[in-house]
Amino acid sequence: MIIAILGGTGKEGGGLAMRWAQAGHKILIGSRDAERARQRAAELSRQVNGAIEGLSNVEAARRGELVVITVPFAGHRALLEEVRPALQGKIVVDTVVPVDLKAPHPYVPPAEGSAAEEAQAVLGSRVRVVAALHHIAAHELSALGHVISGDGLFCGDDAAAKAVVAALISAIGARPVDVGPLKHAPLIEGITPLLIEINKRYKVKASGIHITGI
Amino acid sequence: MIIAILGGTGKEGGGLAMRWAQAGHKILIGSRDAERARQRAAELSRQVNGAIEGLSNVEAARRGELVVITVPFAGHRALLEEVRPALQGKIVVDTVVPVDLKAPHPYVPPAEGSAAEEAQAVLGSRVRVVAALHHIAAHELSALGHVISGDGLFCGDDAAAKAVVAALISAIGARPVDVGPLKHAPLIEGITPLLIEINKRYKVKASGIHITGI
Repeated sequence: MIIAILGGTGKEGGGLAMRWAQAGHKILIGSRDAERARQRAAELSRQVNGAIEGLSNVEAARRGELVVITVPFAGHRALLEEVRPALQGKIVVDTVVPVDLKAPHPYVPPAEGSAAEEAQAVLGSRVRVVAALHHIAAHELSALGHVISGDGLFCGDDAAAKAVVAALISAIGARPVDVGPLKHAPLIEGITPLLIEINKRYKVKASGIHITGI
Repeated sequence: MIIAILGGTGKEGGGLAMRWAQAGHKILIGSRDAERARQRAAELSRQVNGAIEGLSNVEAARRGELVVITVPFAGHRALLEEVRPALQGKIVVDTVVPVDLKAPHPYVPPAEGSAAEEAQAVLGSRVRVVAALHHIAAHELSALGHVISGDGLFCGDDAAAKAVVAALISAIGARPVDVGPLKHAPLIEGITPLLIEINKRYKVKASGIHITGI
């Protein structure tokens, strides 16, 4: 599959790119700055035996068969509006979490309820949004030999799209756990500030969440 | 320690009562209906070798050294207002989760942000509220020989109160995990609807959450 990772020059995107490239997928790293995307793709390609190419976000969105969003929340809505036409008919995996550790509550979702629901609202009903991959630390993803101990929770409204995303979660070495419809996205996204707090409090870099009893 | 469990005639309260009684604590089961509390306490006492007594919520709140709230969210605020004078100076453990699976989003917190923050607002600054024990299924607690596999996440603003609660979590056989200040309570409480969904979707009775990497 051709997977575009928008905002893919960040740490999270890089780890996903390498693990999916190793699993045999073709990866397109997207960035606002196409030249930066090309440099990053070249760096990542040297670390894995796989196909990773750098492009502008718009071009990556256009060529990707499945598109993953890994931008900071501040740029989330603007990016989605920019690439909206290119995403019609596709599966979009939204990994973004609106966090502000200094706010009265650290999870600060947009009016739609979550980043993923904002994505669905902006992109429209012809795009199948799946919320996923919020809890697997960039640090863990990038250490390629490292076995990921946390689960990959995901939610969305389209069963076929969720099956595709579950396979991609398995491909990075995590156990996929289906936590229901897209309206559960605030609950998944909200776990990320907890893990940030746990990392700080327990002086670790990559806490995660594992569901027991299933 | 004398632990009062308000709304303790429910399944969650019963499991906690038995495990803490076994660990040597004196347990007071509180209910709106003191006679029902007495009957339930007698039933629970027969299952464990420990001291469990049934009382009205108000009387249990008055005599408890530490007070645990296990009512359904619909009765949360009214109960707190009723027992407010009896709780001054004490540690209150709030286990309540505002859930409505039919709402646009299943976690439906009050204006304060969470049940635990509502408790703190109602009870005032002389009460130390700790949010805890939202994720350990009644089913698991009641099966006394069963080893609890999920962690006991908790948060609160008073370090000494949190240390006491951490010890009580250990006493039921779960690992305590400190996830920070009370303003993180919405994030902990919000995990419960996810576990309800997971139980339904994976056809299990007692899914839980374990933090990896610490």
